Amino acid sequence: MLFSITGLQKELSNEANKLSFGKYPKELYEPIHYIMQLGGKRMRPLLSCLSYYIFEEDFKKIIPQSMLVEVFHNFSLMHDDIMDKAPLRRGKQTVHEKWNTNIAILSGDVMLVKAYEILEKIAKEHQPIVLKQFNKTATGVCEGQQLDMNFETKDTVTVDEYIEMIRLKTAVLLGFSMQLGGILANTTDKNCDLLYKCGMYAGIAFQLTDDLLDVYGNAESFGKQVGGDIVSNKKTYLLIRALEKATGKTKKELLDLLSNTTITAEEKVKKVTAIYNQLEIKAETEALIQEYFSKAEEALTSVKGSIYRKHYIKDYFHSLIQRQS
Amino acid sequence: MLFSITGLQKELSNEANKLSFGKYPKELYEPIHYIMQLGGKRMRPLLSCLSYYIFEEDFKKIIPQSMLVEVFHNFSLMHDDIMDKAPLRRGKQTVHEKWNTNIAILSGDVMLVKAYEILEKIAKEHQPIVLKQFNKTATGVCEGQQLDMNFETKDTVTVDEYIEMIRLKTAVLLGFSMQLGGILANTTDKNCDLLYKCGMYAGIAFQLTDDLLDVYGNAESFGKQVGGDIVSNKKTYLLIRALEKATGKTKKELLDLLSNTTITAEEKVKKVTAIYNQLEIKAETEALIQEYFSKAEEALTSVKGSIYRKHYIKDYFHSLIQRQS
Repeated sequence: MLFSITGLQKELSNEANKLSFGKYPKELYEPIHYIMQLGGKRMRPLLSCLSYYIFEEDFKKIIPQSMLVEVFHNFSLMHDDIMDKAPLRRGKQTVHEKWNTNIAILSGDVMLVKAYEILEKIAKEHQPIVLKQFNKTATGVCEGQQLDMNFETKDTVTVDEYIEMIRLKTAVLLGFSMQLGGILANTTDKNCDLLYKCGMYAGIAFQLTDDLLDVYGNAESFGKQVGGDIVSNKKTYLLIRALEKATGKTKKELLDLLSNTTITAEEKVKKVTAIYNQLEIKAETEALIQEYFSKAEEALTSVKGSIYRKHYIKDYFHSLIQRQS
Repeated sequence: MLFSITGLQKELSNEANKLSFGKYPKELYEPIHYIMQLGGKRMRPLLSCLSYYIFEEDFKKIIPQSMLVEVFHNFSLMHDDIMDKAPLRRGKQTVHEKWNTNIAILSGDVMLVKAYEILEKIAKEHQPIVLKQFNKTATGVCEGQQLDMNFETKDTVTVDEYIEMIRLKTAVLLGFSMQLGGILANTTDKNCDLLYKCGMYAGIAFQLTDDLLDVYGNAESFGKQVGGDIVSNKKTYLLIRALEKATGKTKKELLDLLSNTTITAEEKVKKVTAIYNQLEIKAETEALIQEYFSKAEEALTSVKGSIYRKHYIKDYFHSLIQRQS
């Protein structure tokens, strides 16, 4: 079967948009439909389908089950947005802004339950293992979010701590998404583990790519303000490494920029970027992205299954890493 | 086997207190341990054990699994307290007060996941049905909480709407707690359904008893301010019925009391209670409690199992309904 990623993405979006969660009370269910229809790349269920496809032809069969990871992801966004006091999500009002915080808390809670409800659509013999892995993943995502919040007020964050945070907050769910495809295809535990590793390493690479694009992305196609992380002093990989590498005058200048509250956003982005350039942070980040991406590819290569079909995943990863936006 | 409810409650408390959820980051796990150790009657796991005991001798075997309903219940308290802006829970600071709202949101999220993690301790063949019933229950509890919040700003709440709200917010979890005992004991679907109904009807009776005790309870043993619901204009069964029954001068007086912001709490409680007395709301509430309690007993009677052992449940219900505090 030949198919396009874009076509599959569209089908996954259709499925996500038409999911029915409940009707009454409407304060509980309208926000769920709202956030599910805000769009996005549907990367997680896509990875489930592509992983399933390595072993089984009819990948469309698992679209309903793959919604588990999409619903969970959107649940985590709804609650993260409250905690981060984010006004916008994909250019639209966040749920706690459009409704209120209580509704965002409770709708999110129901959404998490609804994610678990999707487990009911999975064959009974697979439910215990999926439940176990999903629980582990969901716990990791919450731990990652807590670490991310802790980092905001922490003086120093090491590279290891940072990688562990993004591994939990972002990467384990991508790992689980791929593993889910493997489990549903009834493949070996070994293959499922490798798929998990592949998704997890790729997830770290994607987050590092996001960090990089925040500074070096193309403003027009990036879709958000370039340098947003710099303006908010976010401890990204780039900033953590710059703080580690900088010495003397450069170090002082960087620290001054971080504590300067009168400088314009534009000026701050320009000056911090200049320091990153001077310290060759871009090349270093690209090298690390490549390192994690290679680990992901290595795991994928070890999966025993159709090489031809594995290429869909590799190509998809390439498209995500190569994006200049 | 002879045993005391108090002894079992103590064992359940020990189990709840020693549950291990995780360690790091501590902001996520300390609040979970904190709320789990605040005490309480452990009514839900107790009902699971007593229901299991109808069919199987060794009820202590399911103590670990019964924690599912206790952990979920405490999760719902943690999030409800945020939404209700409650400063205290069982006389101690609530989690969002002791830590902060973000921590209470995220700890609660992990707690919900940890409830699902307890499902892993259930035999694989029972997991799908427990998952399904638990999902349904958890959804109901969230819907009940949303309805409860909606009622605060709703002009008129009917008795039917109110009963449906408490059924969802409180009673379905008691129903599920009893059903869980039946499922784990491997009894028939019919018995499990009857146990669910029994717990659900009893749960409605308990909530109505709480409503009644708020006004007519013994202040010392009740452990909270008598008339708290009256002071806050909470739309309890008593107030809803009083608003329905009152006419003419009495109706006007009641409405005036509800909108009076200068009256002292003590005076308001005294006057509203006088109206309840005049309208014979106490007797009516007691009759309705008896009605739901009879339905619960009827369901329990229909359960095919040891009559002798079913008596433990009946006696326990009696002790809860008869409490003057």
